[in-house]
Order: sequence, then C-alpha cells, then structure tokens
Amino acid sequence: MTQAKKRIAIIKIGGQVVDTPQLLQSVAKQIADLLSNPSAGFLSVVVVHGGGAVATRISKELGVESIMVQGRRITSEQMRDVCIMVYRGLVNSSVVSALQQVATHHVIGVSGADGACILAEKRPPVNIEGDLIDFGFVGDIQSVKTDFFVELLEHGYIPVVAPLSITAEGIILNTNADTIAQEIAVALAVQYEVELWYAFEKRGVLRNVEDEHSVIAHITPADYEVLKTGGVITHGMIPKIDNAFRAIERGVATVRICHAEELVTTGAADGGTYFRQ
Amino acid sequence: MTQAKKRIAIIKIGGQVVDTPQLLQSVAKQIADLLSNPSAGFLSVVVVHGGGAVATRISKELGVESIMVQGRRITSEQMRDVCIMVYRGLVNSSVVSALQQVATHHVIGVSGADGACILAEKRPPVNIEGDLIDFGFVGDIQSVKTDFFVELLEHGYIPVVAPLSITAEGIILNTNADTIAQEIAVALAVQYEVELWYAFEKRGVLRNVEDEHSVIAHITPADYEVLKTGGVITHGMIPKIDNAFRAIERGVATVRICHAEELVTTGAADGGTYFRQ
Repeated sequence: MTQAKKRIAIIKIGGQVVDTPQLLQSVAKQIADLLSNPSAGFLSVVVVHGGGAVATRISKELGVESIMVQGRRITSEQMRDVCIMVYRGLVNSSVVSALQQVATHHVIGVSGADGACILAEKRPPVNIEGDLIDFGFVGDIQSVKTDFFVELLEHGYIPVVAPLSITAEGIILNTNADTIAQEIAVALAVQYEVELWYAFEKRGVLRNVEDEHSVIAHITPADYEVLKTGGVITHGMIPKIDNAFRAIERGVATVRICHAEELVTTGAADGGTYFRQ
Repeated sequence: MTQAKKRIAIIKIGGQVVDTPQLLQSVAKQIADLLSNPSAGFLSVVVVHGGGAVATRISKELGVESIMVQGRRITSEQMRDVCIMVYRGLVNSSVVSALQQVATHHVIGVSGADGACILAEKRPPVNIEGDLIDFGFVGDIQSVKTDFFVELLEHGYIPVVAPLSITAEGIILNTNADTIAQEIAVALAVQYEVELWYAFEKRGVLRNVEDEHSVIAHITPADYEVLKTGGVITHGMIPKIDNAFRAIERGVATVRICHAEELVTTGAADGGTYFRQ
C-alpha cells in the first residue's frame, strides 16, 4: 500500500493583488483559513508573487528606462536592480507582513537567489519578427532545488517567493512569476500532491469576457481545442492555459485559475476554472 | 555533566563592506572557510548587514528626503520603503548571492519581518537638546524570536539578516544593524556559545587612530575606563564598545571588533579587539 502524498498548494498572486492592500489582506486571510482548516488537508502553501506594475513605477521615478517587447520586459542591469529592490524588497515584504499577521505558520520571504533555489541561465537573444532581441537580465529556469522548499514546508513555513532566479555564477535574473510558480509546482509534485492556483482579477476562464458569471468550471484538452477553434478563448488567456496543461502533463494534480477574492470559499466548491490530470 | 553548547558566530558587516564587491567576496570566502574548517567548530553563522550609504544614494535618486539627526536617520514612510527596497532587496540579495557562491551551507536572506522574527515598537519621540524629535518608522527591538533562528541554524542554513524589524501590527520598521546583531546574539546565547563579530573598515580599536598597527587586542571594563579617561577612545568608538560590554553582560561569550579582511585569518590568532566574559 502506498502512503498518500501530503497535499500542498502553490499560489501565484498577480500584480493587481499585491498592489491593492485590501485584496492582499483578503488573500492572506483566505490562505490562513485554508491552513487552519484540517479537513482541507494542506501541509502548507508556497506563495509566488508578481509586481511588475510597481517595478515600472519605481523605475520611472529613478529614470531607468523600461522597455517592453510583446508584453515582456527588456531587463537592463539597472532595471534588474530595480526588480530586485521592488520584488525582493518592497513587494515580498508586504506579502510576508500581510500573511504573518494572520497565519499561524512561520512566513518566510525568499527569491530564487536564496539557497540558489531557482537556478537559471540568462536567456539567449530571441528572434522576434526577424529582429534578434536580447532580453538582458532575464532568467530561463533550468532547475528548482526541491530540497530547499521541502525543508521549509516540512518545518511549517510558508515560503513567499519573489520572481527572481540566479545563475550558477551568482548573477540574479528577473524571471516570470507564472513560470516560477509552475516550475516549483512541477518540482514538488514528485513528493507532494500539488495544486497550482493562479489568483488574479477575473473569476476564471470566461465563456463571454463581458460576463463574469460565464466561468468555465473545467477544461479538458479536448474542450480547449474546441474553445480555441470557436474563438471563445483568445490570445490573452492562451499562454496561461497552455501553461496549465503543461503543468498537468508534468505531474501537478490540479491547476486552477480563479479570482483572488475566491481563492478559498465557504461554498460547496471553490470557484474558478479547473484543469485536472 | 553538562553538554558543551554548540558554537555560532553572529557577524555584522558594515555598509562599506556591502558597498565594495571585492571586500564582500572576501568576507564571503572567509565565512565559507570558517564553516568548512571542523577545528573552528562552528555550527553556522548569522550574517547581519547594513547598507545606509546605498539607501541614501537611492533615496536621492528617487527625490525622497533623507534627514539625519546626530548620525541617526529620520525615517519617513517613503524613506522606510526605500530602506525596505535597498536593505531587503538590493543589499541582502547581493550578500546572499556572494555567500551562496562559496558556502556549502544553504544561504537564506531574511529580515525581522520574516516569521516576525524581530519584533519591535515604533520609537517614541526623543528629546534632543530640548527638541522632541520623531524618528518616524524606526524600530526599538522588543524581542527576537529565538526559535526562528535556531531552526534555520540547526538545519544548516546561514541566515543573512537585513536591518528591518516588524511591529505586532505588521508595520515594518528601519532598525539599526549593530543593535539587531547584538539582540540576535543575546537571544541565541541561551542555547549556543555565541561570538559576536563586528567587521568594518578598521583593524579594531586603535590606541592611536593614525596607526593601523596600534590595535588593542583585549579590553576589560577596567581598561575601558582608563582608556576613556585618557582620551584614547573617543566618541566614534564609544557606542560600539558600550554595546560590546552590554552583549557580554547579557551572555554573549566573545565580542570582537575587526577589519572585514581579517575576519578569519590563518595566523595564530585572529585579529581585532576582543571583549570577553
């Protein structure tokens, strides 16, 4: 008889959540409720946050140029330093503080540089419409140091992860928070039953973007093809859903996309759109 | 028979060290050497860093006023946010990265906000020459959560501590790094044999400030009175030495003030000025 794996959740909270104190407090309270409810059965959670809007604001104030190409930031060394200050400093501390206020677990802020827990390489130049674009100090994740997270989780910590990674040479890199959440989820799926939740400002994947009540509760790969072909799911959502399926294929039990206010509900079922193995 | 306590060192590294990459790398290498040398007998170390000069520079670039009264910073809410960005973000990450490159221990950056491990209250207004000065978002430490540090140390981590504390209400405060080092040392002295090392840009307490070779190797309370009366030790050094004796009185085994390049020497005895129980 195999022993059931312990259950954890990786919760990615978007930039709008960390930038809205009330929403952040609501998320913190929901996570504390989740962990204090034995029937939910979670050992702990890993929280991963963004913060791009704050970084853009601070970089403007510092006179550091912030160039975006196809929604992705070109990260100069100066911009990377702003990202370290904002993600690892300001945003991570505010998430830690909000959670620490309500959670009985120890809350500890980390980035991929701590314990070199998210190892990456600097992204090689990318060909975009014929131009070779060098995205600068941006990390492509190579590996997640599973033991680092397992030790924290087993000792009752909630790690709060700032979206940075580190190279083997010790260079810190700006790294996409959705991808960090996914890579941590996949790495931990070997040892735990992992749920990966993306909490943002919409109620899930919507059948009609104008109608917040048109949440699609569950999407299978077959559904997805139909929804894409029918134009129901359009470009903004496609990378998120591609990521969700990739996580599922790589061992994550459940992926869920939901509103930050509906992370842990008291109703019969928690809200949002589910993707399952 | 009482079992000997395990040995740890709390190492405060000054602003000039963190601001000079070569010096920071040297300190990192020395710490790695110390921990990989079994005859030194250290379980782990806690590193505490400053970073005031960087905070002053970034605050100027952001147009945030930085007012100093008698060498102490008045911390507005905006200035506190700069301190969080610089101390917890930029400086802490560079210390973690430098150490992680050379140490076999896991290196983890923390501030007093993580696990609410350094609890403080906002400093009440201080009477300075007849004026009530409100230092703003500055913390007076109330307690150190010993368990938080013990768990990290026992599991082979090197905690790197940014000089911030947190109130019971979750407000993050700017806090003196020398004091944080001292309070962590005192808290951990209950469980460990603690050495508290202040590494800075001089070779120790000098008999003649012009002569780097005039290091006083050991100072007792009786010596101190004589040195003060004789004008050998002057105002700059007095708070540091007062702090050293206070730490000794409160259970710290050894306090040492030394040059960052002479933290761990290969000679017969490590350099600097010692204060002992």
